[in-house]
Amino acid sequence: MKKKPIILVTNDDGILAPGIRALIHSMNLLGDVYVVAPNKPQSGIGHAITMDTILFCDSVKIDNGNQKEWECSGTPVDCVKLAISEILPKKPDICVSGINHGSNSSINIIYSGTISAIIEASIEGIPSVGFSLLDFNWNANFEPYKKYIYQIVKKILYNPIPEHIITLNVNIPKLKKEEIKGIKICRQANSKWKESFDKRYNPKGRTYYWLVGEFLNLDNKKIDTDEWALKNGYISIVPIQFDLTNYAILNILKSLNFFCTIYFFSDLT
Amino acid sequence: MKKKPIILVTNDDGILAPGIRALIHSMNLLGDVYVVAPNKPQSGIGHAITMDTILFCDSVKIDNGNQKEWECSGTPVDCVKLAISEILPKKPDICVSGINHGSNSSINIIYSGTISAIIEASIEGIPSVGFSLLDFNWNANFEPYKKYIYQIVKKILYNPIPEHIITLNVNIPKLKKEEIKGIKICRQANSKWKESFDKRYNPKGRTYYWLVGEFLNLDNKKIDTDEWALKNGYISIVPIQFDLTNYAILNILKSLNFFCTIYFFSDLT
Repeated sequence: MKKKPIILVTNDDGILAPGIRALIHSMNLLGDVYVVAPNKPQSGIGHAITMDTILFCDSVKIDNGNQKEWECSGTPVDCVKLAISEILPKKPDICVSGINHGSNSSINIIYSGTISAIIEASIEGIPSVGFSLLDFNWNANFEPYKKYIYQIVKKILYNPIPEHIITLNVNIPKLKKEEIKGIKICRQANSKWKESFDKRYNPKGRTYYWLVGEFLNLDNKKIDTDEWALKNGYISIVPIQFDLTNYAILNILKSLNFFCTIYFFSDLT
Repeated sequence: MKKKPIILVTNDDGILAPGIRALIHSMNLLGDVYVVAPNKPQSGIGHAITMDTILFCDSVKIDNGNQKEWECSGTPVDCVKLAISEILPKKPDICVSGINHGSNSSINIIYSGTISAIIEASIEGIPSVGFSLLDFNWNANFEPYKKYIYQIVKKILYNPIPEHIITLNVNIPKLKKEEIKGIKICRQANSKWKESFDKRYNPKGRTYYWLVGEFLNLDNKKIDTDEWALKNGYISIVPIQFDLTNYAILNILKSLNFFCTIYFFSDLT
């Protein structure tokens, strides 16, 4: 890459979150930064898009730095679509999302707006990286991790892998800089949230629920997973994709002629 | 399966949509049906969950039939979580979602609440099937397809594949019954929406946008895809999964020692 790269920055915690401010600061050292991010927190919004109402997307100036910024009334995926189609002067060289306040390891990626944003970029053929720090605190200290983030993005920008678009889910353990052991390339751990809703009654007696849950790692002790890496002091990197086809089952279903006894035409009348 | 199966039904078009009413009717012939579905349309809501506010979930009686029904203020994924954790007497034997008004083939699954609901069920270890008819019309005629749906669900219920949880994305072409050629087991076609936002100005002069788009099948003429099957008169069935790990890239990144030049500790200070 000879020219200064164009970097699209977004997140799901909203454009004012300290996590995205730290990410913008790091990216300003690498290229021309365009921020298109939600105007409010959107954690848990997944890959939602705004189909049935309108979107606002307004230029804003939030703090110092060379970045250009827009705040959007929609979801993180809306932000990526709007950025590419309407806002940026040309297709970005990379899309980065985060730094998320809290983990997006293992199954959490499926609920995460931060990760959905980078998946949307990958659908558009744009390399992308989502960053999350294992610290839910709004005032989390992102400073110690900015140089790792800088180096990871630089690596992706200047070392393309032929015929592959790289899409990475990066999680960073909440450790002192000197305690971080390195980077592990991992698979997504098999895990789930065991829900238990907190059931309450409103002042008129109507039942309502708060979603609560306990995280279960079903791949406990499996050393090739992101959960293992994070528990053992490593930054975890999981390459991800948007093809959800389950090829293992696909081949089984085909070989079994699984649906061959389903009849068509007149026998169903 | 000896006992009558417990069937969870949901969708993203809302509990009043004709598509879910047709699905409920078919499922009543197969087992004890519990409907937990959104109280309003939620197309494009993806895998969103409600974390920052409360959920209502009220018992309702909408039409005839043996099903028990609840309408929920949340997303399709909220519905599945609430159903399993709070509403159903025990874990369902299967979760079915739809019948969606409009296609959920290829890349559309990533935006679809209908499909996110079955993915959530699969995370919980429950076999699941999402049904979509290629007809966006609210008054689409679902009658001709109900017997195929019945047979597909019956097949999944009574023919488990050892050590695999089956999660299927089923799309049905809008054809007369006698024109449907059969079922194809497919992979998700590589495709995307080429966005072009419709830019307008509100009465005060502020810019706003409507999302519009043109569907692009990047796997045109590839006969192993769902898009090909649907265009050629077949019901498409794509087995899907929630593991988003891109194993091809994972192995490349590992073999290249891709991140070995990223330094830790004192060299970053």
